[in-house]
Amino acid sequence: MSKPPEVTGILETVLYYAPGQGPVMERFYLELMGFRRIGGGSEGGHPFLFLRTGGSVLLLFDREASLSKQSPPHHGAAGPGHVCFLVPEADYEEWKTHLRTRDIPIEEEASWPRGGRSFYFRDPAGNTLEMANRDFWPE
Amino acid sequence: MSKPPEVTGILETVLYYAPGQGPVMERFYLELMGFRRIGGGSEGGHPFLFLRTGGSVLLLFDREASLSKQSPPHHGAAGPGHVCFLVPEADYEEWKTHLRTRDIPIEEEASWPRGGRSFYFRDPAGNTLEMANRDFWPE
Repeated sequence: MSKPPEVTGILETVLYYAPGQGPVMERFYLELMGFRRIGGGSEGGHPFLFLRTGGSVLLLFDREASLSKQSPPHHGAAGPGHVCFLVPEADYEEWKTHLRTRDIPIEEEASWPRGGRSFYFRDPAGNTLEMANRDFWPE
Repeated sequence: MSKPPEVTGILETVLYYAPGQGPVMERFYLELMGFRRIGGGSEGGHPFLFLRTGGSVLLLFDREASLSKQSPPHHGAAGPGHVCFLVPEADYEEWKTHLRTRDIPIEEEASWPRGGRSFYFRDPAGNTLEMANRDFWPE
Protein backbone atom coordinates (compact mmCIF):
# COMPACT_ATOMS: atom_id res chain seq x y z
CA MET A 1 0.00 0.00 0.00
CA SER A 2 1.45 3.40 -0.97
CA LYS A 3 2.30 5.89 1.77
CA PRO A 4 -0.64 8.15 2.74
CA PRO A 5 -0.37 11.91 2.13
CA GLU A 6 0.39 14.16 5.11
CA VAL A 7 -1.88 15.40 7.93
CA THR A 8 -0.83 18.56 9.75
CA GLY A 9 -3.00 18.04 12.83
CA ILE A 10 -6.56 18.28 14.12
CA LEU A 11 -8.49 21.42 13.15
CA GLU A 12 -11.89 20.68 14.75
CA THR A 13 -12.87 18.67 17.81
CA VAL A 14 -16.52 18.30 18.86
CA LEU A 15 -18.35 17.80 22.14
CA TYR A 16 -22.08 17.15 22.29
CA TYR A 17 -24.83 18.14 24.67
CA ALA A 18 -28.48 17.16 25.11
CA PRO A 19 -31.32 19.35 23.80
CA GLY A 20 -31.94 22.16 26.28
CA GLN A 21 -28.36 22.32 27.55
CA GLY A 22 -27.23 24.89 24.93
CA PRO A 23 -27.42 28.03 27.11
CA VAL A 24 -25.64 26.52 30.10
CA MET A 25 -22.94 25.03 27.86
CA GLU A 26 -22.48 28.38 26.13
CA ARG A 27 -22.04 30.22 29.43
CA PHE A 28 -19.63 27.62 30.72
CA TYR A 29 -17.32 27.71 27.69
CA LEU A 30 -17.49 31.46 27.03
CA GLU A 31 -17.47 32.89 30.54
CA LEU A 32 -15.80 30.30 32.72
CA MET A 33 -13.41 28.79 30.17
CA GLY A 34 -12.82 32.02 28.28
CA PHE A 35 -13.09 30.53 24.79
CA ARG A 36 -13.85 32.84 21.82
CA ARG A 37 -17.11 32.47 19.92
CA ILE A 38 -16.47 32.27 16.17
CA GLY A 39 -20.06 31.44 15.18
CA GLY A 40 -23.43 30.01 16.18
CA GLY A 41 -24.98 29.58 19.61
CA SER A 42 -27.37 32.14 21.01
CA GLU A 43 -25.90 34.78 18.69
CA GLY A 44 -26.86 32.79 15.60
CA GLY A 45 -29.98 31.29 17.22
CA HIS A 46 -29.06 27.74 16.29
CA PRO A 47 -28.03 24.56 18.09
CA PHE A 48 -24.38 24.64 17.08
CA LEU A 49 -21.75 26.77 18.78
CA PHE A 50 -18.32 27.27 17.21
CA LEU A 51 -15.46 28.24 19.52
CA ARG A 52 -11.78 28.86 19.26
CA THR A 53 -9.29 28.29 22.04
CA GLY A 54 -5.66 29.02 21.27
CA GLY A 55 -4.94 27.49 17.89
CA SER A 56 -7.77 24.94 18.04
CA VAL A 57 -11.46 24.94 17.09
CA LEU A 58 -13.98 23.35 19.46
CA LEU A 59 -17.53 22.64 18.26
CA LEU A 60 -20.38 22.29 20.77
CA PHE A 61 -23.34 20.60 19.10
CA ASP A 62 -26.83 19.67 20.25
CA ARG A 63 -26.56 15.97 19.50
CA GLU A 64 -30.11 15.55 18.24
CA ALA A 65 -29.96 18.54 15.89
CA SER A 66 -26.55 17.34 14.71
CA LEU A 67 -27.76 13.80 14.08
CA SER A 68 -30.76 14.96 12.04
CA LYS A 69 -28.95 17.36 9.70
CA GLN A 70 -28.38 16.20 6.13
CA SER A 71 -25.47 18.37 5.02
CA PRO A 72 -22.64 18.34 5.95
CA PRO A 73 -22.94 14.63 6.86
CA HIS A 74 -24.56 14.05 10.23
CA HIS A 75 -22.83 13.05 13.44
CA GLY A 76 -23.76 13.12 17.12
CA ALA A 77 -22.88 10.92 20.07
CA ALA A 78 -24.53 10.31 23.43
CA GLY A 79 -22.63 9.87 26.66
CA PRO A 80 -19.61 11.65 28.08
CA GLY A 81 -16.95 12.66 25.53
CA HIS A 82 -13.44 13.85 26.30
CA VAL A 83 -11.05 16.64 25.35
CA CYS A 84 -7.65 17.43 26.86
CA PHE A 85 -6.67 21.09 26.67
CA LEU A 86 -3.08 22.25 26.75
CA VAL A 87 -2.40 25.20 29.04
CA PRO A 88 0.80 27.19 29.62
CA GLU A 89 2.83 25.67 32.43
CA ALA A 90 2.65 29.03 34.26
CA ASP A 91 -1.18 28.98 34.19
CA TYR A 92 -1.72 25.40 35.36
CA GLU A 93 -2.15 26.03 39.11
CA GLU A 94 -4.17 29.15 38.39
CA TRP A 95 -6.62 27.07 36.33
CA LYS A 96 -7.26 24.80 39.33
CA THR A 97 -7.93 27.80 41.53
CA HIS A 98 -10.10 29.42 38.85
CA LEU A 99 -12.31 26.31 38.59
CA ARG A 100 -12.48 25.57 42.32
CA THR A 101 -13.57 29.10 43.20
CA ARG A 102 -16.42 28.66 40.70
CA ASP A 103 -17.52 25.38 42.33
CA ILE A 104 -16.27 23.13 39.53
CA PRO A 105 -14.93 20.02 41.28
CA ILE A 106 -11.56 18.64 40.20
CA GLU A 107 -12.10 14.90 40.08
CA GLU A 108 -8.53 13.69 39.82
CA GLU A 109 -5.00 14.84 39.10
CA ALA A 110 -2.37 12.71 37.35
CA SER A 111 1.43 12.81 37.01
CA TRP A 112 2.64 11.28 33.75
CA PRO A 113 5.66 9.00 33.16
CA ARG A 114 7.39 11.39 30.75
CA GLY A 115 6.84 14.38 33.05
CA GLY A 116 3.89 16.71 33.04
CA ARG A 117 0.66 16.78 34.99
CA SER A 118 -3.02 17.04 34.18
CA PHE A 119 -6.30 17.28 36.05
CA TYR A 120 -9.87 16.29 35.23
CA PHE A 121 -13.24 18.00 35.62
CA ARG A 122 -16.60 17.98 33.83
CA ASP A 123 -18.61 20.40 31.74
CA PRO A 124 -22.36 20.88 32.35
CA ALA A 125 -23.20 18.14 29.84
CA GLY A 126 -20.98 15.65 31.71
CA ASN A 127 -18.10 15.60 29.23
CA THR A 128 -14.75 14.76 30.87
CA LEU A 129 -12.37 17.68 30.38
CA GLU A 130 -8.66 17.59 31.12
CA MET A 131 -6.04 20.29 31.39
CA ALA A 132 -2.40 19.40 30.77
CA ASN A 133 0.58 21.56 31.64
CA ARG A 134 2.60 20.20 28.68
CA ASP A 135 2.44 17.77 25.76
CA PHE A 136 3.41 14.64 27.69
CA TRP A 137 2.95 12.20 24.79
CA PRO A 138 5.80 10.55 22.84
CA GLU A 139 6.55 12.05 19.43
CA MET B 1 -16.00 37.24 37.09
CA SER B 2 -12.20 37.45 36.73
CA LYS B 3 -10.64 36.63 33.38
CA PRO B 4 -9.84 32.92 32.95
CA PRO B 5 -6.20 31.82 32.56
CA GLU B 6 -4.95 30.93 29.09
CA VAL B 7 -5.48 27.81 26.98
CA THR B 8 -2.93 27.06 24.24
CA GLY B 9 -5.10 24.63 22.28
CA ILE B 10 -6.40 21.07 22.21
CA LEU B 11 -3.88 18.34 23.02
CA GLU B 12 -6.11 15.22 22.85
CA THR B 13 -9.22 14.45 20.84
CA VAL B 14 -11.02 11.11 21.17
CA LEU B 15 -13.12 8.93 18.89
CA TYR B 16 -14.90 5.82 20.14
CA TYR B 17 -15.66 2.44 18.64
CA ALA B 18 -17.80 -0.52 19.66
CA PRO B 19 -16.28 -3.60 21.33
CA GLY B 20 -14.78 -5.84 18.63
CA GLN B 21 -13.96 -3.00 16.23
CA GLY B 22 -10.47 -2.39 17.65
CA PRO B 23 -8.44 -4.30 15.04
CA VAL B 24 -10.23 -2.78 12.03
CA MET B 25 -9.99 0.73 13.54
CA GLU B 26 -6.29 0.22 14.21
CA ARG B 27 -5.59 -0.89 10.63
CA PHE B 28 -7.61 2.01 9.23
CA TYR B 29 -5.82 4.71 11.22
CA LEU B 30 -2.30 3.24 11.04
CA GLU B 31 -2.18 1.90 7.47
CA LEU B 32 -4.72 3.91 5.52
CA MET B 33 -4.49 7.22 7.39
CA GLY B 34 -0.78 6.91 8.20
CA PHE B 35 -1.03 8.03 11.84
CA ARG B 36 1.76 7.14 14.27
CA ARG B 37 1.09 4.80 17.19
CA ILE B 38 2.36 6.28 20.44
CA GLY B 39 0.82 3.63 22.72
CA GLY B 40 -1.81 0.99 23.24
CA GLY B 41 -3.81 -1.02 20.74
CA SER B 42 -2.71 -4.48 19.64
CA GLU B 43 0.86 -3.67 20.70
CA GLY B 44 -0.21 -3.10 24.29
CA GLY B 45 -3.06 -5.62 24.18
CA HIS B 46 -5.61 -3.19 25.55
CA PRO B 47 -8.74 -1.44 24.29
CA PHE B 48 -7.19 2.04 23.98
CA LEU B 49 -5.05 3.14 21.06
CA PHE B 50 -3.02 6.37 21.24
CA LEU B 51 -2.05 8.00 17.96
CA ARG B 52 -0.29 11.11 16.82
CA THR B 53 -0.95 12.93 13.57
CA GLY B 54 1.08 16.05 12.92
CA GLY B 55 1.04 18.06 16.14
CA SER B 56 -2.16 16.49 17.52
CA VAL B 57 -2.95 13.42 19.60
CA LEU B 58 -5.94 11.25 18.64
CA LEU B 59 -7.26 8.64 21.07
CA LEU B 60 -9.29 5.67 19.80
CA PHE B 61 -11.14 4.07 22.69
CA ASP B 62 -13.44 1.07 23.01
CA ARG B 63 -16.40 2.94 24.46
CA GLU B 64 -17.46 0.21 26.88
CA ALA B 65 -13.98 -0.28 28.31
CA SER B 66 -13.58 3.50 28.52
CA LEU B 67 -16.92 3.93 30.32
CA SER B 68 -16.12 1.28 32.90
CA LYS B 69 -12.65 2.49 33.92
CA GLN B 70 -12.30 4.26 37.24
CA SER B 71 -9.11 6.26 36.81
CA PRO B 72 -8.59 8.56 35.02
CA PRO B 73 -12.29 9.54 35.11
CA HIS B 74 -14.43 7.55 32.69
CA HIS B 75 -15.85 8.76 29.41
CA GLY B 76 -17.31 7.07 26.33
CA ALA B 77 -19.97 8.06 23.83
CA ALA B 78 -22.14 6.04 21.46
CA GLY B 79 -23.02 7.20 17.96
CA PRO B 80 -20.98 8.88 15.25
CA GLY B 81 -18.41 11.42 16.46
CA HIS B 82 -16.52 13.91 14.35
CA VAL B 83 -12.99 15.16 13.79
CA CYS B 84 -11.73 17.54 11.11
CA PHE B 85 -8.10 17.03 10.11
CA LEU B 86 -5.99 19.76 8.59
CA VAL B 87 -3.91 18.70 5.58
CA PRO B 88 -1.35 20.64 3.55
CA GLU B 89 -3.02 22.40 0.62
CA ALA B 90 -0.69 20.51 -1.74
CA ASP B 91 -1.89 17.13 -0.38
CA TYR B 92 -5.65 17.78 -0.47
CA GLU B 93 -6.47 16.31 -3.91
CA GLU B 94 -4.05 13.44 -3.28
CA TRP B 95 -5.99 12.55 -0.11
CA LYS B 96 -9.21 12.18 -2.13
CA THR B 97 -7.46 9.90 -4.61
CA HIS B 98 -5.80 7.94 -1.78
CA LEU B 99 -9.15 7.26 -0.11
CA ARG B 100 -11.10 6.53 -3.30
CA THR B 101 -8.57 3.99 -4.55
CA ARG B 102 -9.02 2.22 -1.20
CA ASP B 103 -12.81 2.12 -1.58
CA ILE B 104 -13.51 4.76 1.07
CA PRO B 105 -16.46 6.77 -0.28
CA ILE B 106 -16.29 10.56 -0.09
CA GLU B 107 -19.75 11.58 1.06
CA GLU B 108 -19.66 15.29 0.39
CA GLU B 109 -17.31 18.16 -0.41
CA ALA B 110 -17.82 21.74 0.80
CA SER B 111 -16.45 25.15 -0.17
CA TRP B 112 -16.36 27.56 2.77
CA PRO B 113 -17.27 31.27 2.80
CA ARG B 114 -13.80 32.42 3.88
CA GLY B 115 -12.07 30.25 1.29
CA GLY B 116 -10.87 26.71 1.76
CA ARG B 117 -12.47 23.36 1.05
CA SER B 118 -13.10 20.17 2.95
CA PHE B 119 -14.52 16.73 2.27
CA TYR B 120 -16.23 14.13 4.45
CA PHE B 121 -15.86 10.37 4.80
CA ARG B 122 -16.30 7.77 7.57
CA ASP B 123 -14.08 5.51 9.60
CA PRO B 124 -14.99 1.82 10.16
CA ALA B 125 -16.87 2.74 13.38
CA GLY B 126 -19.04 5.27 11.49
CA ASN B 127 -17.37 8.42 12.82
CA THR B 128 -17.64 11.35 10.39
CA LEU B 129 -14.14 12.43 9.38
CA GLU B 130 -13.33 15.62 7.50
CA MET B 131 -10.20 16.85 5.77
CA ALA B 132 -9.68 20.57 5.32
CA ASN B 133 -7.11 22.18 3.03
CA ARG B 134 -6.71 25.17 5.39
CA ASP B 135 -7.96 26.64 8.66
CA PHE B 136 -11.11 28.31 7.29
CA TRP B 137 -12.45 29.53 10.65
CA PRO B 138 -12.39 33.14 11.87
CA GLU B 139 -9.70 33.99 14.37
